[in-house]
Amino acid sequence: MMGVKKAAIIMGSDSDFPTVSAAVKRLKLLDIPMEVHVMSAHRTPQAAAEFSVSAVKNGFGVIIAAAGKAAHLAGVLAAHTTLPVIGIPIKSSTLDGLDALLATVQMPSGIPVATVAIDGADNAAILAAQILALSDETLAAKLVEMKKQMAQGVAQKDAAIQAKVQEL
Amino acid sequence: MMGVKKAAIIMGSDSDFPTVSAAVKRLKLLDIPMEVHVMSAHRTPQAAAEFSVSAVKNGFGVIIAAAGKAAHLAGVLAAHTTLPVIGIPIKSSTLDGLDALLATVQMPSGIPVATVAIDGADNAAILAAQILALSDETLAAKLVEMKKQMAQGVAQKDAAIQAKVQEL
Amino acid sequence: MMGVKKAAIIMGSDSDFPTVSAAVKRLKLLDIPMEVHVMSAHRTPQAAAEFSVSAVKNGFGVIIAAAGKAAHLAGVLAAHTTLPVIGIPIKSSTLDGLDALLATVQMPSGIPVATVAIDGADNAAILAAQILALSDETLAAKLVEMKKQMAQGVAQKDAAIQAKVQEL
Amino acid sequence: MMGVKKAAIIMGSDSDFPTVSAAVKRLKLLDIPMEVHVMSAHRTPQAAAEFSVSAVKNGFGVIIAAAGKAAHLAGVLAAHTTLPVIGIPIKSSTLDGLDALLATVQMPSGIPVATVAIDGADNAAILAAQILALSDETLAAKLVEMKKQMAQGVAQKDAAIQAKVQEL
Amino acid sequence: MMGVKKAAIIMGSDSDFPTVSAAVKRLKLLDIPMEVHVMSAHRTPQAAAEFSVSAVKNGFGVIIAAAGKAAHLAGVLAAHTTLPVIGIPIKSSTLDGLDALLATVQMPSGIPVATVAIDGADNAAILAAQILALSDETLAAKLVEMKKQMAQGVAQKDAAIQAKVQEL
Amino acid sequence: MMGVKKAAIIMGSDSDFPTVSAAVKRLKLLDIPMEVHVMSAHRTPQAAAEFSVSAVKNGFGVIIAAAGKAAHLAGVLAAHTTLPVIGIPIKSSTLDGLDALLATVQMPSGIPVATVAIDGADNAAILAAQILALSDETLAAKLVEMKKQMAQGVAQKDAAIQAKVQEL
Amino acid sequence: MMGVKKAAIIMGSDSDFPTVSAAVKRLKLLDIPMEVHVMSAHRTPQAAAEFSVSAVKNGFGVIIAAAGKAAHLAGVLAAHTTLPVIGIPIKSSTLDGLDALLATVQMPSGIPVATVAIDGADNAAILAAQILALSDETLAAKLVEMKKQMAQGVAQKDAAIQAKVQEL
Amino acid sequence: MMGVKKAAIIMGSDSDFPTVSAAVKRLKLLDIPMEVHVMSAHRTPQAAAEFSVSAVKNGFGVIIAAAGKAAHLAGVLAAHTTLPVIGIPIKSSTLDGLDALLATVQMPSGIPVATVAIDGADNAAILAAQILALSDETLAAKLVEMKKQMAQGVAQKDAAIQAKVQEL
Repeated sequence: MMGVKKAAIIMGSDSDFPTVSAAVKRLKLLDIPMEVHVMSAHRTPQAAAEFSVSAVKNGFGVIIAAAGKAAHLAGVLAAHTTLPVIGIPIKSSTLDGLDALLATVQMPSGIPVATVAIDGADNAAILAAQILALSDETLAAKLVEMKKQMAQGVAQKDAAIQAKVQEL
Repeated sequence: MMGVKKAAIIMGSDSDFPTVSAAVKRLKLLDIPMEVHVMSAHRTPQAAAEFSVSAVKNGFGVIIAAAGKAAHLAGVLAAHTTLPVIGIPIKSSTLDGLDALLATVQMPSGIPVATVAIDGADNAAILAAQILALSDETLAAKLVEMKKQMAQGVAQKDAAIQAKVQEL
Repeated sequence: MMGVKKAAIIMGSDSDFPTVSAAVKRLKLLDIPMEVHVMSAHRTPQAAAEFSVSAVKNGFGVIIAAAGKAAHLAGVLAAHTTLPVIGIPIKSSTLDGLDALLATVQMPSGIPVATVAIDGADNAAILAAQILALSDETLAAKLVEMKKQMAQGVAQKDAAIQAKVQEL
Repeated sequence: MMGVKKAAIIMGSDSDFPTVSAAVKRLKLLDIPMEVHVMSAHRTPQAAAEFSVSAVKNGFGVIIAAAGKAAHLAGVLAAHTTLPVIGIPIKSSTLDGLDALLATVQMPSGIPVATVAIDGADNAAILAAQILALSDETLAAKLVEMKKQMAQGVAQKDAAIQAKVQEL
Repeated sequence: MMGVKKAAIIMGSDSDFPTVSAAVKRLKLLDIPMEVHVMSAHRTPQAAAEFSVSAVKNGFGVIIAAAGKAAHLAGVLAAHTTLPVIGIPIKSSTLDGLDALLATVQMPSGIPVATVAIDGADNAAILAAQILALSDETLAAKLVEMKKQMAQGVAQKDAAIQAKVQEL
Repeated sequence: MMGVKKAAIIMGSDSDFPTVSAAVKRLKLLDIPMEVHVMSAHRTPQAAAEFSVSAVKNGFGVIIAAAGKAAHLAGVLAAHTTLPVIGIPIKSSTLDGLDALLATVQMPSGIPVATVAIDGADNAAILAAQILALSDETLAAKLVEMKKQMAQGVAQKDAAIQAKVQEL
Repeated sequence: MMGVKKAAIIMGSDSDFPTVSAAVKRLKLLDIPMEVHVMSAHRTPQAAAEFSVSAVKNGFGVIIAAAGKAAHLAGVLAAHTTLPVIGIPIKSSTLDGLDALLATVQMPSGIPVATVAIDGADNAAILAAQILALSDETLAAKLVEMKKQMAQGVAQKDAAIQAKVQEL
Repeated sequence: MMGVKKAAIIMGSDSDFPTVSAAVKRLKLLDIPMEVHVMSAHRTPQAAAEFSVSAVKNGFGVIIAAAGKAAHLAGVLAAHTTLPVIGIPIKSSTLDGLDALLATVQMPSGIPVATVAIDGADNAAILAAQILALSDETLAAKLVEMKKQMAQGVAQKDAAIQAKVQEL
């Protein structure tokens, strides 16, 4: 039996939390069970490896990993599991996140990381939801509804912008 | 029960096929049912939109999109579906694929694209398999086996390199 | 009959308005009729496509599209019309606008986007005016006059800088 | 009535011709009258300035300028006219065209250059045609037809790819 | 005899003055006669061209040009004179000055621009002084003295840092 | 006394060997004992971790790691040891080695990787020798001698170039 | 006799001290004897060369060099010694440290610089300690202990983040 | 009177000669006396320093320095002289010359390097000639003549291109 699967959110440093919190909020909003951890590919490599090795057994269906600079976390987690791993490159004090983007996305053949935009925590959560929704029709329906609301939000902003245009 | 889901591979131009064929081969190797199409976000936007809108209904579980330059294809497909969309940025004659990478991965909040490495077609297929394997234990077992063989392959190369080192 | 043509300004998000407003102001200054909209290539793809498909019929002569990150908006609009489409890449929180620039300008053969500088909303409007002025001699005369005033403005600044140089 | 307007294609060096020839061919295909010149912003600045100053009087409606490296040609031409100027950044032996792209597109406020992709000569011509078509219904109809054929071409390639997929 | 030659400092916009003022100050400090102007390659191309064409006749020995974005000013001035032209790329609101650097330094064969660092106004003035000092022994002696003082300044800072190190 | 220490050279893929062989040759030339292995941070993460954990015990004094793309190998090895780890970023088919450089050098605080130039295998070996030479006076003397020969080689090339200059 | 070796920290400008101080603190924490200097490859080239030439004789075992922009300091020091030289690229007001990174790491064959991350002063000191620890078992033990504490620190942050996750 | 001054061309490696030879040829064409040397900032730092220290005394008026990768040569020479130093960044096997460009142009305040385009050896020689021509009217006249011929060359190419355009 495969049951309801959890999402894991792993961040390389607690300083990533202000960015990563958008992913936590989105998963909560979609009622997706999750665990959130601070683990480092470099400072706690064994903890990270063990988490990933046991992730299937522990009921996870997808892992989200956020890290900055030479962002190895997503790749290290992907090395130890066959679960889909989603990488969020985090912008740090230099190079505007380009280092984290390339270190996350340019994975060698055999070990993919599903990379989203720099600091794209909300999208990482939505992607995780899309993946889990393949075997969860309730979740799939929520995603369809969310997409509709997003479109309505844009339509409302279109209406609202007309007043601002008049004022110029 | 939701049934066996297909993978779609969409490329923006048939000139992408030499790169994209690695994804086709990998999916065949894993016995994942698929459809392969040439569709362009810019030259056949309606066909692309219609494919994506109908993808769930037509039994797809994941969409892989490959495009170069201002690579909008994955994003355009993602705009019309709640299925996970995997983007392969294709290197073209200038900028070494950086344009396609940024145009694929830097999606705005709400519409994620799961981006793999530039020209990373094999990884796109493996990621698609990882996603579909969440509800397909046979496929999951194949991925575990593939990972083991990959590790053995590296070990064999390690053994083989010793002779080359002696020759230097 | 071809008549007086309107300009459209479409922005991907209302957060782009502070930058885009320079284009609105310039078009107002030149008495060019316009419509301004918030539409997203990713969140409201159908609205965007419909707007573009109907643009000729609805009396538009040129479309200006502003978007950031993986900026697909201009390309998506250009896919659905033969009107000239002008793209404004918008700088966002990472990569200093390079992502939006490449995603806007690197269009594949067949579907051009007339790209201006990052955040170059004023220039987008002037380019739109130059295009419309080809069949509107009054507008053409205004552009010639504007160019003269711009040159005079520089000459005045040249005079004014002399005092600042003395003070150093 | 303002009459049929010509397109100008100016390249900074005759070594750009292999790339620029795609623009010449496209304009011929669309029966757009043109003049083609080699003029350099740096080696023949006066000739370039005079050409641009007289362009309106000489019956031009749009100017296409192609140059590589510190590509100033489009900007220099735009400085002397109120006609729309289209810039083609040409890739040269270093930096993959990024220098030409930035030197062409990043124009200061007041003097836009409608920039297309690096080496995007075909698109420059199509953009010129879109601009001229605003006051030429025959040309406008040709562009609509060309767009249809482009879509059909993609559909044919989609059909053709199925055989290649089988062979893998 | 060729007489004492002046330096010219030309900036593309008066908004460049806070950066350019370092060059003015350095030239004053070295008693080098100068003229300072705001002239734009794009907004006042004729004024810029005329200044450069007449620069030799008007007693200039070197021209310093500062501009941002698609920084054509130095190249345009160099096109019209055989005097050495020094380019200062100015950082603007996007791309961190990379656009101005490439647009200034990547000049085609035949028309060099002696480019200094982004925002390197002080160095532009020192380079101008080094050039003028080749035929001015007094100025040459000042530069030798300035170099000595610079070295002494570093030695003093080395001494001063020892206290700060102790405090840590 | 701590005994003679070995150098390890680990490459992520045997396709890196043509580049990495320069390091092997240099170590041989300097009579530094070594082991050479193919191990992957992603395909054989456990083997890599175990090698690094045991490196001190197994008599290694320094580890050289070469990898391309999202080059995590050096960082992963550094995570498991307190030995100095030298990283060689390997250029692969896209992005000219920039991805490997940033993924190797931009390590987070606590876990340094001593990074050399892209494809800089010879320098990695020389750096390893410089490190080992701190407790090996014979090796130190060889490095001094090597530096002298390098200087003499340049002097000979200086002499040889004079003839080529005459021929021009 | 080889004795206890000192570390040198050389910075190109005292404005680098706020960043470099992290290296000073780390060396103090590890009881590594050191000298700290301000020396410039460009303003005091002789002092820098003499320091490096005499470094072995003066009891240094490793040199750390920090510089920004066209960061030549580490390379210049490495040119004059066979000691390992560690380079810290310093971020300055433009280009986000990329200039300093490339100018430090891309050394030609024969003269390596062990480059750490942009502004990576702490890591430069840890790398220096790892190098010196090869012949100093007490220091080696401190590094092992430091690594353990670092791991514990991450574990504590993992525990602490759980509360923050609840609050969202 | 200060006498006729020589130009020096220094290259960091004899492998730079195929590119640098364009500078040698141009100086020969202009009858400028010169010395050409291979000297390395890293492999023969003392020879380079001594050359630069003695350059004024030895009758040089300008120094051209060509180097690739972490191109320190021009900066090192500039550190030891008050003569104008012209830097040619040489493209090497990775990063397309960007590393050499930034390492050459981004000099700190006080020590300018007059940087030309990547591989811009011809322009370096022309710039040297422009500098020397300030006190040499014969040379100045040659530069004016050269500029005229360059313009005529472009005019001839403009004429020649017309035939090629017809053939398309």
